[in-house]
Amino acid sequence: MRAEIVSVGTELLLGQIVDTNAACLAQVLSELGISVYRRTTVGDNPQRLAAALDQALAENDIVFTIGGLGPTDDDITRETLARAMGDTLRRDEEIARRLEAFFRLRRVQMTESNLRQALVPTHGRPLPNPNGTAPGLLFEKDGKVAIALPGPPSEFLPMVADHVVPLLRSRTGGIGTIRSRVLRICDMGESLVEERLRDLMQSANPTVAPYAKTGEVHVRITARADTLEEAERLIAGPLAEAERRLGSHVYGRDEESLEAAVVRLLKERGLTVATGESCTGGLLAKRITDVPGSSAVFPGGVVSYSNAAKCDLLAVPPDLIAAHGAVSREVAVAMAQGARRRLHVDFGVGITGVAGPEGGTPEKPVGLVWIAVSHAGGEDVEENRFAGGRQDVRARSAQYALVMLRRRLLADGD
Amino acid sequence: MRAEIVSVGTELLLGQIVDTNAACLAQVLSELGISVYRRTTVGDNPQRLAAALDQALAENDIVFTIGGLGPTDDDITRETLARAMGDTLRRDEEIARRLEAFFRLRRVQMTESNLRQALVPTHGRPLPNPNGTAPGLLFEKDGKVAIALPGPPSEFLPMVADHVVPLLRSRTGGIGTIRSRVLRICDMGESLVEERLRDLMQSANPTVAPYAKTGEVHVRITARADTLEEAERLIAGPLAEAERRLGSHVYGRDEESLEAAVVRLLKERGLTVATGESCTGGLLAKRITDVPGSSAVFPGGVVSYSNAAKCDLLAVPPDLIAAHGAVSREVAVAMAQGARRRLHVDFGVGITGVAGPEGGTPEKPVGLVWIAVSHAGGEDVEENRFAGGRQDVRARSAQYALVMLRRRLLADGD
Repeated sequence: MRAEIVSVGTELLLGQIVDTNAACLAQVLSELGISVYRRTTVGDNPQRLAAALDQALAENDIVFTIGGLGPTDDDITRETLARAMGDTLRRDEEIARRLEAFFRLRRVQMTESNLRQALVPTHGRPLPNPNGTAPGLLFEKDGKVAIALPGPPSEFLPMVADHVVPLLRSRTGGIGTIRSRVLRICDMGESLVEERLRDLMQSANPTVAPYAKTGEVHVRITARADTLEEAERLIAGPLAEAERRLGSHVYGRDEESLEAAVVRLLKERGLTVATGESCTGGLLAKRITDVPGSSAVFPGGVVSYSNAAKCDLLAVPPDLIAAHGAVSREVAVAMAQGARRRLHVDFGVGITGVAGPEGGTPEKPVGLVWIAVSHAGGEDVEENRFAGGRQDVRARSAQYALVMLRRRLLADGD
Repeated sequence: MRAEIVSVGTELLLGQIVDTNAACLAQVLSELGISVYRRTTVGDNPQRLAAALDQALAENDIVFTIGGLGPTDDDITRETLARAMGDTLRRDEEIARRLEAFFRLRRVQMTESNLRQALVPTHGRPLPNPNGTAPGLLFEKDGKVAIALPGPPSEFLPMVADHVVPLLRSRTGGIGTIRSRVLRICDMGESLVEERLRDLMQSANPTVAPYAKTGEVHVRITARADTLEEAERLIAGPLAEAERRLGSHVYGRDEESLEAAVVRLLKERGLTVATGESCTGGLLAKRITDVPGSSAVFPGGVVSYSNAAKCDLLAVPPDLIAAHGAVSREVAVAMAQGARRRLHVDFGVGITGVAGPEGGTPEKPVGLVWIAVSHAGGEDVEENRFAGGRQDVRARSAQYALVMLRRRLLADGD
């Protein structure tokens, strides 16, 4: 079964809102094994919506619209979709009565245009909307199916979960499903990942595809099959093989973030970590504490933005800063040691660098970041030159600190 | 001038990522007076991308693609767009050299496929990408224009700002435009904002519309006009009137975040702040240091996740924790005082609460958060019960701490 999603709304074309509904529906459809080959977004314009719907209905088995079911004149989906389906609209007296009661209760006067929301397909039926006034609409005619859904997420999401999914499930009984698994890789670039997996990436089912993220790579393995079990069976071989080839660079699977993987490793080994951050300004501590249960491995950290704070809170010797500058190998190491000692933990992480946009010099340009991990056996320390603006440098620094901490944990575990 | 945006990526069709890039580009185009009549999303499939591009090029003056410029085999935009434009690709030796230097610097092995990123239009030119390896591509042939942009937002956003906007501006002088201004409001709910602005919201040009965000409200005022000056003239009256009615609840305009507004206020008054965070785990410090130049007002902070860290680093008396618990009015105040004294600043902010999912009790449920601001005249302290999951509770806590700090700054400034 093949589907297209048509999002309707001038505010989408003007970029005033981000279309999270379409992403949500796309995900639901892929899990049901329904292929989405295209998504289209048009404004509140009857001609252009009609053209998009004609094309979508010609090329697909089922078409979804999102938005344009409101009571105002620029809500055009109901009438335009009915015409595109070769159908007409009839008034549903039950819905009309409920609309009248709704407005009476709120002591708001109901207008004629509000009653348009009681119009439903002659060939089809309404989908209940307990969270708003506009019902969803199921059109069924001449072997084609179209489903119109409301735009507000508070109405859209429950309608998808409570009505669209059961409806589709009842019709796609045997047609299959799509299942995806993700391997998450750090400390290895996208092209090297690809080189190791090139032959696996030739496969059509399951597909194997790497995606570059900030400081990490995700490999997604996606299978289509009649049943979930069959899809999982198809995935198992390539998943295990990819994991074998990428070795310890695979830090986690599916939804596990790098910080969650590091917290898990620390927990498994009964070890603890503390942070001493300058240019990342708390971002690393924030990421660690994003993980539920991180308090078992993370007593806390220090954000030492000023030199005085580095000395006071992390016991960095003022002479060291005077001799080497705050952004230096020596100060990164001292911050990591200070965090480790002050918070009585197994690992201390120190980060000091130039995040920009100001503060760079020819010798110490924006993007220069020293990161150190202090541990029982000494210190690991690295100089990095990260590209991008302030937020990129900060994000990459926190990411790389987690990579270094994980590397140390793996080395100690051998 | 008429444009279409074609987003490329199987991840988008599967709903695994939300297309924020397309919304951003749409907004930029509308501000330049370029009409977007349709947006299309297709997967990493050459045939379907080619069909979408042929249709888009036939119906529009300019076509933008987003994504699919990476080095791997499923990055197909470069070649497919060249074919659709009737153009070929040539190797740019300068870009090839820079790619080689990039990989040498990172001590990563460069593969043949990396060099595909040095291919540029024969009729057209590359758009520089200082934040990644793939340049953008400008194709110009037979009166049609196509611009290919990279998918990672950290590369996409700067390229749009630094290259696409100037390029389009140089070609669209004189046609109509849409201009938007935003008032950012804190410490006041959406319905109250709406009540104060109800009559202004009746206007058709400019439109005035409030949007609820996490812990704040944005009021967007949008005008259409022939020239930018005329649009700004239309906006000026309602903007000033809305600002008058909302008073000091307006913390900033347009892109200014709440943390940027607070840093600005502190700078204007020559004052400083430090943080003592428990449940937010560094998120407040991270938000403050997101602001360029925040080092002038923020020497640092402490993330005291454990009780020991609260006592050691923020001088919270152990007896206080024993008597009232770590999540209490008394401990929030002591943390704020400790941050203020330890870091020698004008304001100390203390946050302690239950972020969940574990750790809640009937008396101290998930979402209970105490926030204190310590200042020369004493302490402000408030009990909050935030709804939502762990990340919601953390985000709302950091947001409300900034609101309280701003309130204190305004009260002291009177």
